[in-house]
Amino acid sequence: MTQTTDQLSARPPGRPRSERADKAIVDATLDLLAEEGGVAGVSIEAVAARAGVGKTTIYRRWPNKEALIIDALAALKEPLIEPRGESVREDLIAWAKVFIADKSDKKRVDCYWSILSSAERYPELITRFNQEVIEPRREAIRQVLRRGIATGELRPDLDVELALWILTGTMAHRARASSAGPVPEDFAERVVDELIAGLGRH
Amino acid sequence: MTQTTDQLSARPPGRPRSERADKAIVDATLDLLAEEGGVAGVSIEAVAARAGVGKTTIYRRWPNKEALIIDALAALKEPLIEPRGESVREDLIAWAKVFIADKSDKKRVDCYWSILSSAERYPELITRFNQEVIEPRREAIRQVLRRGIATGELRPDLDVELALWILTGTMAHRARASSAGPVPEDFAERVVDELIAGLGRH
Repeated sequence: MTQTTDQLSARPPGRPRSERADKAIVDATLDLLAEEGGVAGVSIEAVAARAGVGKTTIYRRWPNKEALIIDALAALKEPLIEPRGESVREDLIAWAKVFIADKSDKKRVDCYWSILSSAERYPELITRFNQEVIEPRREAIRQVLRRGIATGELRPDLDVELALWILTGTMAHRARASSAGPVPEDFAERVVDELIAGLGRH
Repeated sequence: MTQTTDQLSARPPGRPRSERADKAIVDATLDLLAEEGGVAGVSIEAVAARAGVGKTTIYRRWPNKEALIIDALAALKEPLIEPRGESVREDLIAWAKVFIADKSDKKRVDCYWSILSSAERYPELITRFNQEVIEPRREAIRQVLRRGIATGELRPDLDVELALWILTGTMAHRARASSAGPVPEDFAERVVDELIAGLGRH
């Protein structure tokens, strides 16, 4: 995603006009979402004004603000990584590093928080955010874990859903704990190794 | 804590006047903290007005609003539990259940969020919150883990600090995931067992 952003900002003349407009619209949506108004502060009018486009340009691609917000969040999120498949340990570490980077980015976290804290007023938005942004990422980890069971790297009776909560919870919690300082470079690796080994004496 | 609250509200005439005032002041502080204004919305004036006491009554016990907020938060937090010491597994499950109850209470979570989101404006408050409310609870878990290493229930080379992030992260993440529904009754037990056993095949 970083690459795409750099390409777009470094060479706007080489890009079709509609693509530049799309990017400006998505950026404006995320800016507004990360600000104090949160979801309530995002409106097609406000996005159009900040992106410097007409409202019709937005409506041509997005039927309403909810659809725009979901697409903007999907673009913001670190992309799904393709498991290299050499070992479950390696794949889990690679995933955990991406997850930590995602949760360590203040603008992203502000955007997610806006979505989560608007759950009561915009239940449909949370549902779609979960379905289209969160769930595909959770499913990718489940597949890594299931493959580990199949290859014998992981326990045959492993509770995949529980392991998923443990992995995501640990990474999210540490990334959020700003008072504990930045996440150490080797945190993902150490957690995965400690989880695979287990806390108990075997 | 629930018991104390019930006693106070059920039998106010039997309580000394100052104790009733203290409780009204603490409750008013937490109410304001949980509301939209967060830490910025808490002032000695606002607390006095909501608690129905004079400002001097507050200043008699608390030098400033930061001290009042810290005491109010410490009172709000689920109390430290005394480890029963029969097994590390039992103690970790008991702790995890208290932790989940704490994080599942909307008013509490709103208060913590107010504190965390005010980190930039009130750094001293976060520092004291961590020192006086969070850290004693983390230390209690560390002691359980260290005891487990000593008794041989846990791996001798266990990374206690890492295990603490895993335990607190998993519980906090699941309790916060309201879209996943309420935390299942046996969640704490299943996580502790999965962590002790480890994800890997031994």
